[in-house]
Amino acid sequence: MHALTSTPLISGLPDIAADILSRVRSRSPRVHCMTNAVAQNFTANVLLAAGAVPSMTVAPEEIAEFVARADALLVNLGTFDRERRDAAEVAIEEATDEQRPWVLDPVFVDRSRPRTEFAKTLMAKTPRAVRLNGAEFAAIADADPAEDALKRYALDQLSVIALTGVTDTVTDGARMAKIENGDPLMGRVTAMGCAGTALVAACLAVEADPWLATSAGLLAFAIAGECAAARARGPGSLAVEILDALASLDRETLLMRARVR
Amino acid sequence: MHALTSTPLISGLPDIAADILSRVRSRSPRVHCMTNAVAQNFTANVLLAAGAVPSMTVAPEEIAEFVARADALLVNLGTFDRERRDAAEVAIEEATDEQRPWVLDPVFVDRSRPRTEFAKTLMAKTPRAVRLNGAEFAAIADADPAEDALKRYALDQLSVIALTGVTDTVTDGARMAKIENGDPLMGRVTAMGCAGTALVAACLAVEADPWLATSAGLLAFAIAGECAAARARGPGSLAVEILDALASLDRETLLMRARVR
Amino acid sequence: MHALTSTPLISGLPDIAADILSRVRSRSPRVHCMTNAVAQNFTANVLLAAGAVPSMTVAPEEIAEFVARADALLVNLGTFDRERRDAAEVAIEEATDEQRPWVLDPVFVDRSRPRTEFAKTLMAKTPRAVRLNGAEFAAIADADPAEDALKRYALDQLSVIALTGVTDTVTDGARMAKIENGDPLMGRVTAMGCAGTALVAACLAVEADPWLATSAGLLAFAIAGECAAARARGPGSLAVEILDALASLDRETLLMRARVR
Repeated sequence: MHALTSTPLISGLPDIAADILSRVRSRSPRVHCMTNAVAQNFTANVLLAAGAVPSMTVAPEEIAEFVARADALLVNLGTFDRERRDAAEVAIEEATDEQRPWVLDPVFVDRSRPRTEFAKTLMAKTPRAVRLNGAEFAAIADADPAEDALKRYALDQLSVIALTGVTDTVTDGARMAKIENGDPLMGRVTAMGCAGTALVAACLAVEADPWLATSAGLLAFAIAGECAAARARGPGSLAVEILDALASLDRETLLMRARVR
Repeated sequence: MHALTSTPLISGLPDIAADILSRVRSRSPRVHCMTNAVAQNFTANVLLAAGAVPSMTVAPEEIAEFVARADALLVNLGTFDRERRDAAEVAIEEATDEQRPWVLDPVFVDRSRPRTEFAKTLMAKTPRAVRLNGAEFAAIADADPAEDALKRYALDQLSVIALTGVTDTVTDGARMAKIENGDPLMGRVTAMGCAGTALVAACLAVEADPWLATSAGLLAFAIAGECAAARARGPGSLAVEILDALASLDRETLLMRARVR
Repeated sequence: MHALTSTPLISGLPDIAADILSRVRSRSPRVHCMTNAVAQNFTANVLLAAGAVPSMTVAPEEIAEFVARADALLVNLGTFDRERRDAAEVAIEEATDEQRPWVLDPVFVDRSRPRTEFAKTLMAKTPRAVRLNGAEFAAIADADPAEDALKRYALDQLSVIALTGVTDTVTDGARMAKIENGDPLMGRVTAMGCAGTALVAACLAVEADPWLATSAGLLAFAIAGECAAARARGPGSLAVEILDALASLDRETLLMRARVR
């Protein structure tokens, strides 16, 4: 049954991604980012390049007001200090109350136990989507990142699971997209994954189907990365070129370059 | 009367801006920046590109010593945590005691009430200049950003008011400059405004007339942005090019490109 | 005696630096960086460009776990808040227990007394290497940065002392290298020195002789800076180009460009 329903969707994904991207540009959604200090600047620039409007405060006293006025929320665990942890809980409560989509990026959750435990308490609050790599999935879901485990975890958590790597796999438990775009040089730039998750948050702000929004965001980001790598001379110029590529990414490029199954 | 006194000053502004910029390069003023984590790196690079020397600590225990040895202070509210707020008050007290110029950038003051209230208490401490956009002015001054309201607020606060947007308006209540340089692509790079305010702080360090210093800083920044946009392929390359443009900005380019009235 | 033993080492240094750099690329050492918010992004990108894997958390609760899984530790005093100071002590204790090399970058230690005092307590914990400029050396060692004072301090502290400036001087008290590579434009980019120290940490992770590792890291960084300056149009493009140059730096370039005595 999945094959019957998902095949037409998958082949139409590049076109849908172009639609979602153009909605981001025309509606300029506000995306509030709780992200680590390493990633803040690049993440804000990726959102601005895509046409969204970032805000980044982490102060517990004002986070609720910022989230209330935002169209989507990103929670990234990259740097994990007390104030940010408190603020994340306030922010997620506000997003839930206001029915704003929020996305979790459980960075380095495999590297320290307090991080794993905290990420699990956040998963229980039902993010619309989660973006992580294989090691992070294993730590947070207590399972190997096989396709069945991803689907099961998506169904259990009622969240879209986006496992990124050489191939990005996006599933809501029923549907599954495999995105084969991107370039290895993207892994040589810090905060590249974090910034991709922020783009997913911007897509969630303008598209009600979280599986489509997540797939579209990761597809657009991976293709922008490919375009950037084609012009870059190394990781320094890649980080510059991907912002330029994202700002000028059009439907034609998306359709021509997409390798999705 | 204003027309009589201000017209010759306005037409001479590009030349004066070139003088001020070359003083920044020869004197290398130290500018202490209390700014948000998103903006810190780009702000430091803008100051270095212009020939100033940035320092960025926000720790309350040592901020007074840094400000005492600095030639100007920038206070930006971008990320608004407890430690930064305490440190801002200490820093401003030190700057006032040492008669160092300081400039306020009340970022996002229209987005949360605690921010508005805090910004008003800082305005009461008489910054030499304030840089803000229309929404921020409305929140902090409880008035629409019309020319008369800007002048009145400048006179009330004894501060230069710099309202930035498509046109930048700089007034001390008596004189008013309207700067029409800049490029829309500058709005697609995070911390661009914050970094422009830091350049104003550097100009205040070498020029006693705060209206001239503020106008010069914003004019030089907007023209560097134009030069950068002429070479950039998007927001990523713009952020790189503006640093190169600022480092090589000369009198000829300032005179040729300035659109001030 | 030093002349007899050190001359052959010095002339062989570029070749040894190439070996160490290729070990960084093949082993991908994890480098945990406690560094200031201004430098975090650029430092992470320098490490990734060189082939190392950075992590950056400063939260006291989890820093020990990150250091335990890292191959080297960088402690930079750039922004000096309470939480970072506590975390630095925990991190250094863990590195010492696990016999991981750590390197100190006592940024701005000459600008505030609490910073000087704190840096001295860290020196007493015997970093494998320290990177600083003349003013910072004077503050921390209570001596002018003459060659004899550097050697004496290195012997007293049992640390490699790397004094950077127009010429970089690296000594362990017995051996001394003077590196004359680099470009003045590097001083116009924020966090350039901090990022160079991070590269030293990566080299310490793969080379047991701390004098060789420190000299190799600084030599490679200075030569990458020269290559970058040859292509850059100003400080903005230099920061991009140095990442590209570091990622592609090869033995031939190191041997051809090295000016070491």
